[in-house]
Amino acid sequence: MAFGWIDEQAESRRSAGLVRTLRPRPAESPLLDLASNDYLGLARHPDVTEAAARAARTWGGGATGSRLVTGTTELHTELERELAAFCGFEAALVFSSGYAANLAAVTALAPHGSLIVSDAGNHASLIDGCRLARGATQVVAHADPEAVRKALRTHDGPAVAVSDTVFSVDGDAAPLAALAGVCRERGAGLVVDDAHGLGVLGDGGRGAPYAAGLAGADDVVVTVTLSKSLGSQGGAVLGPARVIGQLVNAARTFIFDTGLAPAAAGAALAALRLLRGEPERAARARAVAGELHTRLTAAGLAAVRPDAAVVSVRAPSPESAVRWAADCRAEGLAVGCFRPPSVPDGISRLRLTARADLSGDQIERAVRVIGDTRP
Amino acid sequence: MAFGWIDEQAESRRSAGLVRTLRPRPAESPLLDLASNDYLGLARHPDVTEAAARAARTWGGGATGSRLVTGTTELHTELERELAAFCGFEAALVFSSGYAANLAAVTALAPHGSLIVSDAGNHASLIDGCRLARGATQVVAHADPEAVRKALRTHDGPAVAVSDTVFSVDGDAAPLAALAGVCRERGAGLVVDDAHGLGVLGDGGRGAPYAAGLAGADDVVVTVTLSKSLGSQGGAVLGPARVIGQLVNAARTFIFDTGLAPAAAGAALAALRLLRGEPERAARARAVAGELHTRLTAAGLAAVRPDAAVVSVRAPSPESAVRWAADCRAEGLAVGCFRPPSVPDGISRLRLTARADLSGDQIERAVRVIGDTRP
Ligand SMILES: Cc1ncc(COP(=O)(O)O)c(C=O)c1O
Ligand SMILES: Cc1ncc(COP(=O)(O)O)c(C=O)c1O
Repeated sequence: MAFGWIDEQAESRRSAGLVRTLRPRPAESPLLDLASNDYLGLARHPDVTEAAARAARTWGGGATGSRLVTGTTELHTELERELAAFCGFEAALVFSSGYAANLAAVTALAPHGSLIVSDAGNHASLIDGCRLARGATQVVAHADPEAVRKALRTHDGPAVAVSDTVFSVDGDAAPLAALAGVCRERGAGLVVDDAHGLGVLGDGGRGAPYAAGLAGADDVVVTVTLSKSLGSQGGAVLGPARVIGQLVNAARTFIFDTGLAPAAAGAALAALRLLRGEPERAARARAVAGELHTRLTAAGLAAVRPDAAVVSVRAPSPESAVRWAADCRAEGLAVGCFRPPSVPDGISRLRLTARADLSGDQIERAVRVIGDTRP
Repeated sequence: MAFGWIDEQAESRRSAGLVRTLRPRPAESPLLDLASNDYLGLARHPDVTEAAARAARTWGGGATGSRLVTGTTELHTELERELAAFCGFEAALVFSSGYAANLAAVTALAPHGSLIVSDAGNHASLIDGCRLARGATQVVAHADPEAVRKALRTHDGPAVAVSDTVFSVDGDAAPLAALAGVCRERGAGLVVDDAHGLGVLGDGGRGAPYAAGLAGADDVVVTVTLSKSLGSQGGAVLGPARVIGQLVNAARTFIFDTGLAPAAAGAALAALRLLRGEPERAARARAVAGELHTRLTAAGLAAVRPDAAVVSVRAPSPESAVRWAADCRAEGLAVGCFRPPSVPDGISRLRLTARADLSGDQIERAVRVIGDTRP
């Protein structure tokens, strides 16, 4: 029977304790949220939600077509201009998601005959980009510029190194300056995904590439998402105008996808303007992460020192991680729970996000609950 | 130099007349729109835009996380329930785009060792799904159930046939009932992309699978987009609950992507309710398409008979297609222009969309402009 094989897979997932289910949340949740990626607490900021509402009224519920047909509004262009300027790049291109932006950047910049050198800890969307690209992929050890250098040496012709700037599972940062160095030695491009850096790292939240002195470099391309610090939906690619032109002409997830909904573009633009006006939000997110880490460590938990606003706490097993997260929830605390197959190293963990708008009391409460419910 | 190769590609695009550029539109365009995919004219319906605004205010600018963490709101679940019921399927799962829904459906339903039989005219997102899937792909002749039968016969084990229901370039329909028949002979699943069928075909716009008697079948999976007839952004997969469960657990563009923005979910839900309350909108879109085709043909133009709401008109060359579309625009008419590499057969064409809300006068004007500007 068609799809009969699914039942077997479902059964083995069940017996391994790895079944995922959806838990719809109400508009006003009683839970303390350390699970979302709303790093700056902007998703429900009235400026952001009103901008979304205004954009829907002004421009409609959807973009109505591909960006190349009817799907580019003046609002999209405004967002692209301000994003590029904020992060220090020549040009930007907005996509319907960060996932789509990553697929676009990798596929359009790794043509037939090229080499992609990809960090072993990269996000699923970068990995899928590598798999879709016409170029050949070499996966290298995590956060290891020497490994990237070696891989680049095996190839003549166009090459790119691809890495998250902040890895989504453990919240550790990539060695960006060193990566750029080894890429330059070989004339290779560097494509980095700043999903978890934008709004958190760099002067006023300008992102990890800005912090590493790479903003505006002609051999660096940055992807970002509008769905985390900017509290909206969508993604963007930032880089030299020639690279953006290449994406417009060659990236399938740009050409064959409907443009980002105006409400999402409007919300992201409003969040960006808030961040520009209140640059201390970025520093506050980092400070909250640091405080969470210090207190968790003091409580004897295996927390990884955060380089941005993600704090990861290791759990002994997938089952215990799931139970731990459920116990936190029962105590009023929402935390993320990452486990196989979403973790490259097979280690399950709780994943906490340090929102800039968490109070000292909330941080204390979160640490207490996590400690009290530890497996 | 990194990315230096881009300049060569850009140059050969320029000399072939194939450069694509973005044309930002204002909120109130003076153009008559036959280019968008807003088939039912709902993208700017006040119920739709107010629902988007309300959802942003109630739920925030973004979903704040993956659907499996914080990104499933009760609004997402409500939309899934109503979409599934409307189209006649057991369950539905909403994605950030139709592109992501297609990647998910194909990859999660074509495991290692399986066969995917893919129509040569399929949309880029289905093709990318085939390329990402672990299964092996055989591309077969366009709209040819016999070719699908032959391909399925070459394989034992899980198999799916994958097809658009309405092909986006020429607007022709797939032979769905015959495809389902050959799949059933072999116990294969059928995955169809109803992006251009939902809202246009089937009783009250319930879609092409519904029209073909396939709604609710346990071996049929349908993907839809929320960005065309429903005037919003996003996509969904509809099918048996076991299939939806498989997607929740295995589809990377579901697991590793932020949930659809609440405003987009709200807008799509409002559009769906409008369609349910005003089922004549679907028939009107088909009637407009028929009238466009009749008049274009009477004017001696090479228009393809539409099976849904897309009307394609062939042009002699890419350059003349581009010029034709530009001349239409100069006369106040926006039309789509498809040319290589976006057309599988290399034939450039104008692509007109038959919106349900076009008046007789507007149709007449559109045909006059297209005729007057023909190459
Ligand atoms: C590192 C990274 N890149 C890309 C994405 C995808 O972005 P989006 O969810 O906006 O599609 C995510 C998370 O979802 C991410 O964590
Ligand atoms: C046939 C088809 N499938 C899928 C898609 C992708 O849907 P979306 O634009 O909502 O991502 C499109 C168009 O964009 C399409 O024409």
